[in-house]
Amino acid sequence: MSSTETGLLELSDEECLRLLTTHRPRLGRLAFMSGGRVLVFPMNFVAIGKLIYFRTAPGSKLMAAFRAQQVTFEIDHVDDVWEEGWSVLAFGRIRQVTDDDELDDLRKRPLRPWAAGDRPHYLRMDIDWMSGRRIT
Amino acid sequence: MSSTETGLLELSDEECLRLLTTHRPRLGRLAFMSGGRVLVFPMNFVAIGKLIYFRTAPGSKLMAAFRAQQVTFEIDHVDDVWEEGWSVLAFGRIRQVTDDDELDDLRKRPLRPWAAGDRPHYLRMDIDWMSGRRIT
Repeated sequence: MSSTETGLLELSDEECLRLLTTHRPRLGRLAFMSGGRVLVFPMNFVAIGKLIYFRTAPGSKLMAAFRAQQVTFEIDHVDDVWEEGWSVLAFGRIRQVTDDDELDDLRKRPLRPWAAGDRPHYLRMDIDWMSGRRIT
Repeated sequence: MSSTETGLLELSDEECLRLLTTHRPRLGRLAFMSGGRVLVFPMNFVAIGKLIYFRTAPGSKLMAAFRAQQVTFEIDHVDDVWEEGWSVLAFGRIRQVTDDDELDDLRKRPLRPWAAGDRPHYLRMDIDWMSGRRIT
């Protein structure tokens, strides 16, 4: 399917990474399979190179992390007035951060949990593949 | 996991449906499995009762629809300043709308495709289960 048919332009990996590291607010959607369903949750994040970090409480997202499960993280920007925008998908495995140096560094980052309450766990997603599109 | 632990409050089905039908802008994220990966796309939508309608061009989303595949639709509202918000997940099967009366009605609705270009196909998602949470 060509971009002229769809009004969409494929983004390069470099452009996807740039959008991941510069997008504000740092809010995206984390999606993964759980119990036969696809779950999707809004998540604050910090992207450092091809790593995406999240903070979370114990629960389904963390359970997924413990299993080093394949997840998808999506960010987008949609301008409703101008009807233009872009979306980026990152694919990779997610796991809990346990390294002390990595945790010390993360605690200095502007990484807020989306929900209030105690969010003592940091998750790290290692991106292995990206895909992005921009509305032309 | 209790709501006091997570700072999250479960929403009733009635509240989820109310948010689906009143949320503005009419933008959410459609997620489904394709080729072993979870794909997530921003989509404009119209919710009428327990039905959610989309417009799309031929492509992966429509391919999913043709197979009447199980999909997840997510909407959320996150107030970054006040750190409050909510998210709703709807689960169900999606298929192409082919009924002429249903199509006539849909053409009168404020249902715009997120991307430019020819979007001649209407998709209908029949919600079979919902889940929602609000930050307390």
